[in-house]
Order: sequence, then structure tokens, then C-alpha cells
Amino acid sequence: MKQVVDLAELKKELALLKTPLGFVPTMGYLHDGHLSLVKLAKQTCESVVASIFVNPTQFGPKEDLNAYPSDLPGDLKKLEMAGVDLVWLPTPEIVYPKNFNTWVNIEGVSEPLEGAMRPGHFRGVATVVAKLFNAVEPQKAYFGQKDAQQVAVIKQMTRDLNFPIEIIVGPTVREPDGLAMSSRNTYLNPEERKAATVLYRALTTAKAAYAAGERDGEILRKIMHQTIESEPLAKMQYVSCADRENLYELEHVKSGALLSMAAFVGKTRLIDNLVLSGKDSE
Amino acid sequence: MKQVVDLAELKKELALLKTPLGFVPTMGYLHDGHLSLVKLAKQTCESVVASIFVNPTQFGPKEDLNAYPSDLPGDLKKLEMAGVDLVWLPTPEIVYPKNFNTWVNIEGVSEPLEGAMRPGHFRGVATVVAKLFNAVEPQKAYFGQKDAQQVAVIKQMTRDLNFPIEIIVGPTVREPDGLAMSSRNTYLNPEERKAATVLYRALTTAKAAYAAGERDGEILRKIMHQTIESEPLAKMQYVSCADRENLYELEHVKSGALLSMAAFVGKTRLIDNLVLSGKDSE
Repeated sequence: MKQVVDLAELKKELALLKTPLGFVPTMGYLHDGHLSLVKLAKQTCESVVASIFVNPTQFGPKEDLNAYPSDLPGDLKKLEMAGVDLVWLPTPEIVYPKNFNTWVNIEGVSEPLEGAMRPGHFRGVATVVAKLFNAVEPQKAYFGQKDAQQVAVIKQMTRDLNFPIEIIVGPTVREPDGLAMSSRNTYLNPEERKAATVLYRALTTAKAAYAAGERDGEILRKIMHQTIESEPLAKMQYVSCADRENLYELEHVKSGALLSMAAFVGKTRLIDNLVLSGKDSE
Repeated sequence: MKQVVDLAELKKELALLKTPLGFVPTMGYLHDGHLSLVKLAKQTCESVVASIFVNPTQFGPKEDLNAYPSDLPGDLKKLEMAGVDLVWLPTPEIVYPKNFNTWVNIEGVSEPLEGAMRPGHFRGVATVVAKLFNAVEPQKAYFGQKDAQQVAVIKQMTRDLNFPIEIIVGPTVREPDGLAMSSRNTYLNPEERKAATVLYRALTTAKAAYAAGERDGEILRKIMHQTIESEPLAKMQYVSCADRENLYELEHVKSGALLSMAAFVGKTRLIDNLVLSGKDSE
């Protein structure tokens, strides 16, 4: 596996890779969710490129940029084992050079939920992803369903700006007890770690109600809210039952709707989501 | 010369063209300025693609979108004669489909001068150019120095978002009496057409003062202002003597500074500019 830092090195190494090229952008501290995206890419792409970059512009001033976990030696080992051909490790100065002044703004889909709680977050995400796309020029790019709104935002940007890239979404990978894998899970102490399963319990409780015939969005949101409130260590930030593409809250719920939420468990902010379907298997 | 409308047709035809590919984006009603860009592209590119699209998002609500001149049969003939291989003629619905919601904002360089007079103009320009770049995927793209701030904005966007495209700037092409070629010159009646040379006269008067040793930006701006005011049919909107990259107004002027201006001649808004240099030849 080749490692590069500079953009010129990246371009040089990219020219040597066979296409179609699959791209897995990450912020590092990799878990099985990231590696499942590499696996997906390996299935249909001739070459796979990953990036590790903790993007400062998607963190708010009071967020965890400086505390964000990292383990570069571990990450490189995991990516190599997973069969990645090339990993790009740009510095903040490479991504945001002096006098950087261009921002990609997605209106609509980036505004509610995470967008409302984290002002500027999706502007940072869209801008860095546009840059990564232009730098790596992949045919396919892989994102996890765990960040459902990010997926909607990036699909919207890709379509709107005509990026010649197919966006592929991998399913959320979970711990055995249902907790969605996240680099931020490392912040949880043992007690919080147990309590953190409340997000998935809230989602599956609402899903069970949907499966039993409940179609009122407000009731499904209430079910999720009440489940989270039942856990003393958890504090709900939002719950949502929305159209999965435009993220409008739904009154009448149908198959394909997105249940999502954010909650603090202790001081750690966690998100999770689940797409409702007519099938019992989902 | 192939003509395409749909994005899928465009991609199909692009796949047949040899690279390096040169791209000349236009709003149509072509003049020798546009054709000089095609000529430039022909010099170093294996294939040349042009686009004709009057981009609604770069016009303000009180501007001349609906009056903007067009002559598609004439344009196609000119592009074919100039040796263009492929012309893309997208509709507004293709460029801005339902639920379009993504905007590219360039801060700093897009804010003064044209940006101040035409709020939203450069957001529209940057967004459509990002789309055109991703749709056409050229190695080189050609823009006219006539729109000096647009050049600065597009260079900034290309650098900031890592578009793998070289921006090439062609010199302003002028009528024999000095008027910069512009599709909007067609709005001028014969009397206004004569008066419109005042912009170039203002630029050359300031340039002569610079050549004679004047280095005070405020005095050069005054010279341009006074020249325009001397023409009864003209009304100055702004004059500028600025850094050509970031467009900060200069107190002390040196080689490479950009003289620029906007003025109404009758009801027609015209812009022009000139880069100062140490050499007498420019």
C-alpha cells in the first residue's frame, strides 16, 4: 500500500492505478464500518484509494476537533490488510492553504437535524468532499449509512454539481449489542457504553411499532423520545422521522422513511438512524 | 462539429474525443473575443469543446437576462469555422433541475467591484462553472481577460476546490476604436456606441499617467473617473486600481496592478480593464 501526503505525489500515484477507482474518505480511527466500505469498493473496483483527514471545517468551535481520536499506525495496518492500494494523508495546510476562500453550500437537505445542531458542519463536509473528489477523481465513492444526512447532502451535491462519481452507501455496522460503530464510541466510559445502546433500542422500538401498523410520524417520534428519556445517562438532542432524501419530517409514514436521532450519553454526542421498510428483514 | 443537449449525450461524445481537451464556456452571441479563446485552445489541445448557456443564476432580478442577445445559427457557424469539435447546448432545466440546491461561494475576491454591484453574480458564475467543469472534464479551460474579476474568481475556485484543470486567460479583443468586444455592445445605439469608447480612453489615460511615473492609486482612479465624467452619455459605476489577484484597492501602484471599471452608457452597462506593466508594449 502506497502512502502519500502531497497533492502532486497523489496525482502521480493515481496515474499508476487501474480504473474503475473506488474512494473511501475517512477521518481515521478506523473501525469495521470504514473497513466494510473498503470491502464494498474491492468488490467492483480495480483499485481502492482511502484518505485520512480530520477535517477542521466541519467541527464547530465548541466541538471535539482537538480531542478527535487518532491511531495512524493502526489505521494504516487495517487499510493495508483490507487491500487498499493507496492512502492519502494530507495535512490541514495542504487541504486549506493560505487564502483559501471557497465554500460549497447545500441548501435544504443540510439545514435540519445535524445541520441545525451543528451550524456550518455540512458546509465543511461538502467543501472537503468536493476537494477530495477533485483530487482523487474516483469513479465511485463510498459513504456509510450511519451518517444518513451526510449521505443525503453528498448525493445532492454530486447530482447538483455534476460530479462524474457514483455515490455508494454501505449499511451501518453495529456492535453485537446494537450500538452503531463510531470513532466517538471511544469517548464512552463502561457505564456510558452500556447506556449508549439506548439509541438503537429507540430506533428498533419505533420500527416495531411501524411494523405493527403505526403510520403516524408524531407517534413514532414520541416512542423514540420516550425510550431515550428512559435512560438516565442519555439526553436527547433530536429525534426525526423524515423523508430520507429531503429530510422533511413526515406526518404520515411510509416505507423508505428515515428514523434518526442525536443524543448525548454523558458528554459524548452520538447519532444513529434506521430506514423503515415493508420487509421484516430490515 | 457535433452538437449535444443532454448530459448523457455529452458524456458519450466526450468519450470519443482525443485529449488534452480544451473547453471554452460561453453565453453565446459570439464575437471575436470568444473565437480568440477557441483559437488559443486549438494551439495546444487535441480537441476543443464549447458550451453555449445563458446562465440565469448569474443575473440579478433587475438585469438583462430576458433581453440577453442570442444568435444560435450564427454562433454554431462561427464555432464550426473556428474548428470546435463539440458544442454543448444545455437547457436551463438540464443545468438547474427541480430541487437544485447547491451553491459554490467564493469569499474575498468575489466581493468588491462587480460583486458589490451585482449581488449573487459570482455565486451564479462559480456554481455554473463548477458544473460545466464536472460535466466536460477538460484539461484546460479558457476565459477572457475582459471579465477580469471573473478570471480571479474562477482561478480561486479552481485552486481551492482542486479542480484538475488549467485556467488559461486570453487577452481582451477590441474594436478598432478600442471598445472591448462584448455581446452587450449590441444594445448600444450609434451615438452610445461612439460614447462607449470612453471606458478604454479612461484606462489608457490612466495607463499613460502610470507610464509617466504616477504611482498613487487614488490619482489613477481620479483620472479614470474624470475621463468617464467628461462623456455626457456615460455614468460611472465604479473605477478601481487594485491587486489583480485579490482585488484589494492599491494606494501605491506597481506593475501587474489591474485598472478596471463599470459604467453605464445610456442604459447599457459596460465593463473594461487593463493590466499595468512596466513595458511600453502593453
